[in-house]
Amino acid sequence: MKPSVLESLVVPNTTKIVLLVLDGLGDLPNPSHEMQTPLEAARTPNLDVLAPQAALGRLLPVQPGVTPGSGPGHLGLFGYDPIETQVGRGVLEALGAGVPLEPGDVAARANFCTVDGDGIVTDRRAGRITSEKCAELVAKLRKHAARFDDVEVILQSGKGHRFVAVLRGPGLGGEVSDADPHKEGHPIPPAHVLAPGAPNDKTVRVVNAFVARAAEVLKGESPANAVLARGASARPHLPGYRERFHLRAAAIAAYPMYRGVAQLAGMDLFVPVDETAGEAFAVAKHQWSNYDFFFVHVKGTDMAGEDGDFDAKRAVIEATDAALPSLLELSPDVLCVTGDHSTPVSVKGHSWHPVPALIHARWCFADGFPRFHEKNCRGGSFSNLTSRDLMAVLLANAARLDKYGA
Amino acid sequence: MKPSVLESLVVPNTTKIVLLVLDGLGDLPNPSHEMQTPLEAARTPNLDVLAPQAALGRLLPVQPGVTPGSGPGHLGLFGYDPIETQVGRGVLEALGAGVPLEPGDVAARANFCTVDGDGIVTDRRAGRITSEKCAELVAKLRKHAARFDDVEVILQSGKGHRFVAVLRGPGLGGEVSDADPHKEGHPIPPAHVLAPGAPNDKTVRVVNAFVARAAEVLKGESPANAVLARGASARPHLPGYRERFHLRAAAIAAYPMYRGVAQLAGMDLFVPVDETAGEAFAVAKHQWSNYDFFFVHVKGTDMAGEDGDFDAKRAVIEATDAALPSLLELSPDVLCVTGDHSTPVSVKGHSWHPVPALIHARWCFADGFPRFHEKNCRGGSFSNLTSRDLMAVLLANAARLDKYGA
Repeated sequence: MKPSVLESLVVPNTTKIVLLVLDGLGDLPNPSHEMQTPLEAARTPNLDVLAPQAALGRLLPVQPGVTPGSGPGHLGLFGYDPIETQVGRGVLEALGAGVPLEPGDVAARANFCTVDGDGIVTDRRAGRITSEKCAELVAKLRKHAARFDDVEVILQSGKGHRFVAVLRGPGLGGEVSDADPHKEGHPIPPAHVLAPGAPNDKTVRVVNAFVARAAEVLKGESPANAVLARGASARPHLPGYRERFHLRAAAIAAYPMYRGVAQLAGMDLFVPVDETAGEAFAVAKHQWSNYDFFFVHVKGTDMAGEDGDFDAKRAVIEATDAALPSLLELSPDVLCVTGDHSTPVSVKGHSWHPVPALIHARWCFADGFPRFHEKNCRGGSFSNLTSRDLMAVLLANAARLDKYGA
Repeated sequence: MKPSVLESLVVPNTTKIVLLVLDGLGDLPNPSHEMQTPLEAARTPNLDVLAPQAALGRLLPVQPGVTPGSGPGHLGLFGYDPIETQVGRGVLEALGAGVPLEPGDVAARANFCTVDGDGIVTDRRAGRITSEKCAELVAKLRKHAARFDDVEVILQSGKGHRFVAVLRGPGLGGEVSDADPHKEGHPIPPAHVLAPGAPNDKTVRVVNAFVARAAEVLKGESPANAVLARGASARPHLPGYRERFHLRAAAIAAYPMYRGVAQLAGMDLFVPVDETAGEAFAVAKHQWSNYDFFFVHVKGTDMAGEDGDFDAKRAVIEATDAALPSLLELSPDVLCVTGDHSTPVSVKGHSWHPVPALIHARWCFADGFPRFHEKNCRGGSFSNLTSRDLMAVLLANAARLDKYGA
């Protein structure tokens, strides 16, 4: 759709919208569990009360057959076209590491490696050093490789040999190649521009200066005596929720990656004290009067799906359902329960299958199904809605869209 | 829309297509009526005979979540993209007032107002003069403000202080601002161009000359001693049904707005003696041999929905059903029964919900549902068809489309 039509129809209102995302919710009928899905097998007395009064359906995160990563999955739910809106690997890594990104920032994935006396990379992962060692080396780099002219380099250590480097300064571009040979036995290639232009030239200079300086700083270290950088990308400039939808939006998520994607959409970020739905709902209650839109993220369903653990996935769904009354007592005008993609237990990974979704609102079209699960969702009111169109439906249900044309 | 694949496939035939539009047909399960919709609750013995042999489905008028006005709603049904094809407010008002528009015409909404001795607008609605007084003043303007150089100004009085002004002449543009301060206490601002170009310049000159002349003509009047003009817009140039689909098309509608939109699609217009479906079908019978395509419009369903009157909406559906045999005895090759949008009784206005649709034809895919209503339509053959794609399906069912490719 042209972005302008929807946004031109937005009108202010005082209604509240909650988007509850159970990461990787969608699943398949499981042969080991009487061909039920985890959502179907779960005991969900609170969702069972909502279901008959709700509209059910299925969301297509990107397009048929396409399995989304977490970035595109959430961008779609947030109403952005996940194909037009590309978020680079470096940006996702930085967001995942909890580094707040500002407009103009360029982020890269980096790692420690081992080079020999001739500058040949002999181990791209520096013997998989510990996370503690990584943090220690990153602290050392922070002292000696934190600024190159007017560009600040912000470093955040990660797991094992991995860390994140964010370049912050005027006039930086994100289209540069990797300073990484991608295999052992070769020297570290200098980064070069992938598209002409002064901003990319500048980023190349800083990346190469950083890699060179790091090698000097790490000279006495072993095995981590050099660094590689890849996936450099600029933080995309997205119009935010306030601008697009006149919504004050809050993101409540225990994991930094999801807060990061929400930050790209201009949401304010909140960290619950643990990763249960109950604690996330407690934050929503505390912030209820300050926001119009609440994105609440529950990670456990995806992790259980990745582990192929049917019972664990069912348990996360049941725990979320058990906590639901504390959210319902806030009386959201529109409640949507869905996922960013499917992570079927039998697949043990993200998949392309449409994601079950429930919308509960005064005028949602009560489909009358007794329960919310993948099978009923096939016959619901909004079968095969593209994820990026969900926001339009939620805004409509919240009486926040004007009529189009006379 | 692209002058498209579809149009390149159109072949002549002698088959007849009827598009029966019950305005605002779609509705929601209603808590006061055992969660039935008006269509579901209605006694429809004739539709019940068609239903099992018909394909059912739901139409999305514009895009998910978007509530259409009558203009976009009908443009979609007629096979035009309602986003690419914008019909301005002035054009819709003129069509609604029954003023036939020719290509090149520019139409504006106008009203009588009161200005003080300094030219300040003191009442934008001239004390809400009666429709009779309005007609009298419009007659006066017709005598003295009907032509400016080569541009004719066609005036049509409306309700209360409102009237319509259509500019007809060579080289007029529709992108001009309002000659209306939009609030009291200000003088009438002259119109100015909203986009550069001689056609818009010319329209600005005529609009401002008309407003000035009207003030002279009305000088002795009270309280209506001046006029305002707004929403000026050019009649869009649409390729018509004959050109696009090789169809001789007739529009049968009691209300001028719907005839007006049909006129934009190049249909010939017919006014039934009253607004019942029975009289509309009588016109269809009379014109049966002269046309290939019949758009029949029934307004009552929308009015009842706007009034929040479940029983009245059901009654219009039942009356339409009762009249249906007179249409069926003409043996249309393709009969489609649907709406231009939903007007749920509980919403008391247009809404974004998909619209139930029934297609009865020899090869329609008989879905086998016992009845035609919103709930069965969810699971029908063409769930969530965009309205603008309906014409392709009707043409296909009428054996009026060739194969695409070898």
